[in-house]
Amino acid sequence: MKKESTRHTYPGSEKIYLPGKLHDIRVAMRQVNLTDTVTIVNGERRVRKNDPVYVYDTSGVYTDPTVEIDLEKGLPRLREEWITRRGDVEQLPDFTSEYGRLRQADKQLDTIRFKQIHRPYRAKKGREITQMYYARQGIITPEMEYVAIRENLQNEALGIDTPITPEFVRNEVACGRAIIPANINHPEAEPMIIGRNFLVKLNTNIGNSALSSSIEEEVDKAMWSCYWGGDTLMDLSTGDHIHETREWIIRNCPVPMGTVPIYQALEKVNGVAEELSWEIYRDTLIEQCEQGVDYFTIHAGVLKEHAKWIGERLTGIVSRGGSILSKWCAIHNEENFLYTHFDEICEIVKQYDVALSLGDGMRPGSIHDANDRSQFLELDVLGELTQKAWAHNVQVIIEGPGHVPMQKIRENMERQLTSCHEAPFYTLGPLTTDIAPGYDHITSAIGAAQIAWLGTAMICYVTPKEHLGLPNREDVRNGVIAYKIAAHAADIAKGHPGAIVRDNALSKARFEFRWKDQFNLSLDPERALAYYKEGSKNDGEYCTMCGPNFCAMRISQSLKDCVDKQEK
Amino acid sequence: MKKESTRHTYPGSEKIYLPGKLHDIRVAMRQVNLTDTVTIVNGERRVRKNDPVYVYDTSGVYTDPTVEIDLEKGLPRLREEWITRRGDVEQLPDFTSEYGRLRQADKQLDTIRFKQIHRPYRAKKGREITQMYYARQGIITPEMEYVAIRENLQNEALGIDTPITPEFVRNEVACGRAIIPANINHPEAEPMIIGRNFLVKLNTNIGNSALSSSIEEEVDKAMWSCYWGGDTLMDLSTGDHIHETREWIIRNCPVPMGTVPIYQALEKVNGVAEELSWEIYRDTLIEQCEQGVDYFTIHAGVLKEHAKWIGERLTGIVSRGGSILSKWCAIHNEENFLYTHFDEICEIVKQYDVALSLGDGMRPGSIHDANDRSQFLELDVLGELTQKAWAHNVQVIIEGPGHVPMQKIRENMERQLTSCHEAPFYTLGPLTTDIAPGYDHITSAIGAAQIAWLGTAMICYVTPKEHLGLPNREDVRNGVIAYKIAAHAADIAKGHPGAIVRDNALSKARFEFRWKDQFNLSLDPERALAYYKEGSKNDGEYCTMCGPNFCAMRISQSLKDCVDKQEK
Repeated sequence: MKKESTRHTYPGSEKIYLPGKLHDIRVAMRQVNLTDTVTIVNGERRVRKNDPVYVYDTSGVYTDPTVEIDLEKGLPRLREEWITRRGDVEQLPDFTSEYGRLRQADKQLDTIRFKQIHRPYRAKKGREITQMYYARQGIITPEMEYVAIRENLQNEALGIDTPITPEFVRNEVACGRAIIPANINHPEAEPMIIGRNFLVKLNTNIGNSALSSSIEEEVDKAMWSCYWGGDTLMDLSTGDHIHETREWIIRNCPVPMGTVPIYQALEKVNGVAEELSWEIYRDTLIEQCEQGVDYFTIHAGVLKEHAKWIGERLTGIVSRGGSILSKWCAIHNEENFLYTHFDEICEIVKQYDVALSLGDGMRPGSIHDANDRSQFLELDVLGELTQKAWAHNVQVIIEGPGHVPMQKIRENMERQLTSCHEAPFYTLGPLTTDIAPGYDHITSAIGAAQIAWLGTAMICYVTPKEHLGLPNREDVRNGVIAYKIAAHAADIAKGHPGAIVRDNALSKARFEFRWKDQFNLSLDPERALAYYKEGSKNDGEYCTMCGPNFCAMRISQSLKDCVDKQEK
Repeated sequence: MKKESTRHTYPGSEKIYLPGKLHDIRVAMRQVNLTDTVTIVNGERRVRKNDPVYVYDTSGVYTDPTVEIDLEKGLPRLREEWITRRGDVEQLPDFTSEYGRLRQADKQLDTIRFKQIHRPYRAKKGREITQMYYARQGIITPEMEYVAIRENLQNEALGIDTPITPEFVRNEVACGRAIIPANINHPEAEPMIIGRNFLVKLNTNIGNSALSSSIEEEVDKAMWSCYWGGDTLMDLSTGDHIHETREWIIRNCPVPMGTVPIYQALEKVNGVAEELSWEIYRDTLIEQCEQGVDYFTIHAGVLKEHAKWIGERLTGIVSRGGSILSKWCAIHNEENFLYTHFDEICEIVKQYDVALSLGDGMRPGSIHDANDRSQFLELDVLGELTQKAWAHNVQVIIEGPGHVPMQKIRENMERQLTSCHEAPFYTLGPLTTDIAPGYDHITSAIGAAQIAWLGTAMICYVTPKEHLGLPNREDVRNGVIAYKIAAHAADIAKGHPGAIVRDNALSKARFEFRWKDQFNLSLDPERALAYYKEGSKNDGEYCTMCGPNFCAMRISQSLKDCVDKQEK
């Protein structure tokens, strides 16, 4: 493992920290500094300042040059003091999970193990520690104030009041319309919120399969996706050393991390689905809770009886978890053990404040299968489980499709809100056509923008390699940017306070030929600059697109002078 | 100029021709042949055939191995006999345009000139020859039958009745809801239709600016965009040799071609907008009509009085034509000469059946300026001009924005339908956010899919280089595919008969691990295959995404066996 990550910074930007009012917190944000607007009016040089633009920043301290980065130590433990100060958790002498202890003791893993391990925290007996619990008690936690400030962007920096107050955040979390995924064992993560009254979030997936990738690559990909704007990260590894890879990632991850525990449980029984059991799964949950996973995808809504509807489908079950559990039910002729043990799952995760992402094992894998019986039957079960989890004060989000043609997207959102009592929706795309493998970041960004506008709180990215292979670094970048676009387009459409400021600042820079400002304000400054440079003869006042005589913006500015003169 | 283009073919596909019933025509289509589905049931090998899939094909005879391609001769003149047989046109002894004759006589241009020039056709005195005129007379032309067959895809090939009959086409053209751009001097083009009750079409732009590109590159880019699926092509050249470049492109172009004549007119006055005049413009129109341009963008809706609203905007005028004409109006303090001479424009173009694309000189160039006063004032003028053109039996489409946030897209469509009396809408994107230069094929595909679903008949592609420079071949490919995705997603959402067949066939192939079929049915078979091959250890039954144990489709298929057994 290399000791230091490649340090990235955002061009023309600096890291700033805004203080809390209720709590002693510092909320990280990116400030994009702009150059002046210079015009020549009647031979006189006129200079006007342009205000900086404040941008939501998911890159953590990696872009703060004042913080030392050492992957072997992990990131600063931002929230540890907030957590311990509440007095309701205890640090355990050792890991609770049997498997976790075995891995710790295995000398053969010494070379690849993250060394500076911390003993895990857990709720004290009889104490409730989830953000949902606090919210329902009327308590505004530092995490809630943090996200309120973070969501406000320029409004907060400029002291402008918006509806997004800490109390508003508390209320949204209390009623389950939003979650703050924040395992007490992942204090490195900066608090963020997922809910439809906040900025649309995007999740990125990383993970090695049996066929590819090393730990190093995965840690690198994790940080890379945060740099480009990933809000959360799911580690979907299914190959060797899942446990060790995860430890490296969590300790160095500035955003909440999720997993699908059934993947690791299946590895533990050598890929033989029928040998899965509640006991193995339970130990896996505890193992991951104590490592610091912030949310678990749990396919508890796939019921035995659903299998009989699969025959109506063109592409069967395309969720890995869904297919594994369906197979388990069929082989044992028993109900899904995640469904039957759901209360116990809640009892476990609430001790660490791990959120549940109720998996859509029956999500459609093709346009043909969208909005079908299997999908909506499962959605109703997820709604039932949501209420169970909420009774435990466990935070919940609901996973959604998948492949859905545009005319069927709205029904997904409306049904989800009704069936799942307004718990946040978290969708994979959806892809709006099946015919573009190699470009599914685009087929799905089209669907993601629409469903996010309608109220989906988080969208899971899709890379150009979807259906074809595991993404490399460039695919991750392309996937994240496509989804930042979808999320931002939805934020604008929903009227999120402050979202449009960045568009306006960029367009003003474009119109005034302040190219650097235009690039620095863009989602991918490097690429914009590189494309611009390809047209080699630019002199700053036009680009190769139109050349000097046909630049509409240039003509448009001279037009203004002309009209002004005539009016005199 | 190289003599032969690189021959492209589509993998696993063949060119077929479907016959007409009313006319002696052969309608080109692409047939994608599929492999068999092979399953092993109780040790027995079961083989089922998969029907071929018929795909709309814009590549012309370039993908027909039986046709000889010679760029110096140009494409076969498919429609010439249909046109002359009507007896209402005459072949002129020479070009009418003064400029066109000068260029022909200029010996210095011999080396770059397309040599096998044809004398131009024009309507006989007193005869009307537009598709709209014929349609209104109740005549179903070969062009109308051609597009009816072409639109029906598999339904036509399989003999299934659909609502898209030649008579339906005639009626749509008669009432102006659709156009068939088909200059009598571009008989090489295969007829196609633009209207909201047909498949959504996409336009690609090519063109050199003063700063880049050669004739060769432009011809090559034209054919390249048709190969990937461009339905029409606009030549927006503003550099040298516009006249000669255009001749090469038209003679080798299997799809309708459009231009913005004001660009060339401005070149003729050395880029000095105030020196533009109706006379120069008029000669340019005739020059291009006789070369075979199928539709002209005419910025006749930009009125002198509109300039005063520009001050409300963040990014002024971003249409090149709009800015040029606004400037002309301001300098001369006169009304736009395209508006004042609009009837004369109609009188000219109707003699060649050139369609008018009424340009949106006031389209918004930023999210901030969307749906503003300037934009909608111009739209109302375009509606007035539409009725004028229709009085001449001239076919019309209406150009639209631009940059529009999602929540304002619907208003664009609804206003256009009302203001412009249901003439087809043709939009550039729209881009749904300004913050992603380098990725504007995506910001705009999101908007294009939505507006096309709502009824826009043609979407103009945007490449990743938009705002930054001229697109290269790879940018053209990426732009076209992004727009094929948007158009197809809209076709599905609108329920176009036959559109979904390709999705279903591809998804079936995917589920059955018929990888080659999956790729051959995709929009970009080459890229899908290349991405798949990057994961090197595939054995045909899974890919690197999930590896062997976690392939949901594989598990899902074994699940079926399992459920079947239990039911016995």
